Amino acid sequence: MSQTVTAAVLVIGNEILSGRTQDTNVAFLGKSLNDLGIRLMEVRVVADIEDEIVYAVNALRVRYDYLFTTGGIGPTHDDITADSVAAAFDVGIDYHPEVFELLKQNFESRGLEANGARMRMARVPDGALLIDNEISLAPGFQIENVFVLAGVPSIARAMFNGASNRLRRGEVVRSRSIRCHCGEGTIADTLAVVQDAFPVVDIGSYPWSKDGRYGTSLVLRATDIAMLDSAYDAVFQAAVEAGGDPVEEPAEA
Amino acid sequence: MSQTVTAAVLVIGNEILSGRTQDTNVAFLGKSLNDLGIRLMEVRVVADIEDEIVYAVNALRVRYDYLFTTGGIGPTHDDITADSVAAAFDVGIDYHPEVFELLKQNFESRGLEANGARMRMARVPDGALLIDNEISLAPGFQIENVFVLAGVPSIARAMFNGASNRLRRGEVVRSRSIRCHCGEGTIADTLAVVQDAFPVVDIGSYPWSKDGRYGTSLVLRATDIAMLDSAYDAVFQAAVEAGGDPVEEPAEA
Repeated sequence: MSQTVTAAVLVIGNEILSGRTQDTNVAFLGKSLNDLGIRLMEVRVVADIEDEIVYAVNALRVRYDYLFTTGGIGPTHDDITADSVAAAFDVGIDYHPEVFELLKQNFESRGLEANGARMRMARVPDGALLIDNEISLAPGFQIENVFVLAGVPSIARAMFNGASNRLRRGEVVRSRSIRCHCGEGTIADTLAVVQDAFPVVDIGSYPWSKDGRYGTSLVLRATDIAMLDSAYDAVFQAAVEAGGDPVEEPAEA
Repeated sequence: MSQTVTAAVLVIGNEILSGRTQDTNVAFLGKSLNDLGIRLMEVRVVADIEDEIVYAVNALRVRYDYLFTTGGIGPTHDDITADSVAAAFDVGIDYHPEVFELLKQNFESRGLEANGARMRMARVPDGALLIDNEISLAPGFQIENVFVLAGVPSIARAMFNGASNRLRRGEVVRSRSIRCHCGEGTIADTLAVVQDAFPVVDIGSYPWSKDGRYGTSLVLRATDIAMLDSAYDAVFQAAVEAGGDPVEEPAEA
């Protein structure tokens, strides 16, 4: 019996929606979750508006095994993720004694005042479990199946790594990829036949163009390695017959 | 009376969720929409699964003035966006006579067979309006307030530009940005005071670190230029008082 573990990501931040900041956390989380056998099924990006965050958190946490949020856990007024997640779970939020002491001692040791804003980062919803990270002192947190991570990519990554041993693992999706020097239209019909023959293999087709040449990357993904390899052989053969001069592309996560 | 025009983006594609492909269309659309006075309010990314696409299209098209989809309109079996959008609107889908002829003639002139897969790109939901583009022959399409664009960034951009004159414009959000050489915690409390004093200005705070230095970018956004400038002056002054050695950053879209 195959076991599929699913996840969603909720990116919180006006700066992503305005185009100011290019998100890179989604691609990182998609790959990292896949390495654990967890499939990223949906992503949403919402603004720094509490109602929007609450709505999205509640829609996604019931639908998927895990939800990861990124962004909005810093010290400034626009960092409203912790409060919004507490509201989504209808629990209180308060200073976490351990984090409070940690941050207070650290700020004071650096000659910085433990002011309201700085200590804001010690506020954690009731019942949440901390997520430590090696880069910043302020932790993320987990409440039920929701993991609240920073938006800064290096910290988001460290927090994900700090929490990954808490995740239930599923079957890892393996992938193989073929670089084909023909257009999608040339191989599409035979590709559809192969896809029908291997329903458990997900076959994706992605056009590319580079240095005046164009072609198609054919990406096969499956949990069953034997099936993956059989489908790979069939697609490779189809690419040869289409005159696509195929080569295997390096494996990816 | 201020006029706010809103939009959502739906990114369709397993390759984004798996982390294979780094999306860049969202940042482009966020900026380009803002230039037209349209605010990108929400983004979703879903897999190449018809039910998921239908659900997201229907959730987003009723909630925002416009919905832009990217991805899934090529010739291969995994390109199911046109069918899914037709299903979302509960309309039929068929070959568009004009596109059919255009593609057929083009393929045949290049010595390529006008096969089933290639002609798939001529299928358009009933009642949809075509969106031409300067790069690829196959058009996107518009049905009511939903604009269906390609996933390949250069083509998505060309299609957006081809359709932008159909969009109702709202008030453009202007932004000014200050680069501050102090941590967020140092300026957060006064920043919150300024934010309270200027509720129509959205003030965002984004930490950065570079070459061993760290600091905070403070981004102000508003439709009212006088308010924006006043809030800018207040934030700049707050940054000076915090010892942040602030400088104005170049304007962004």
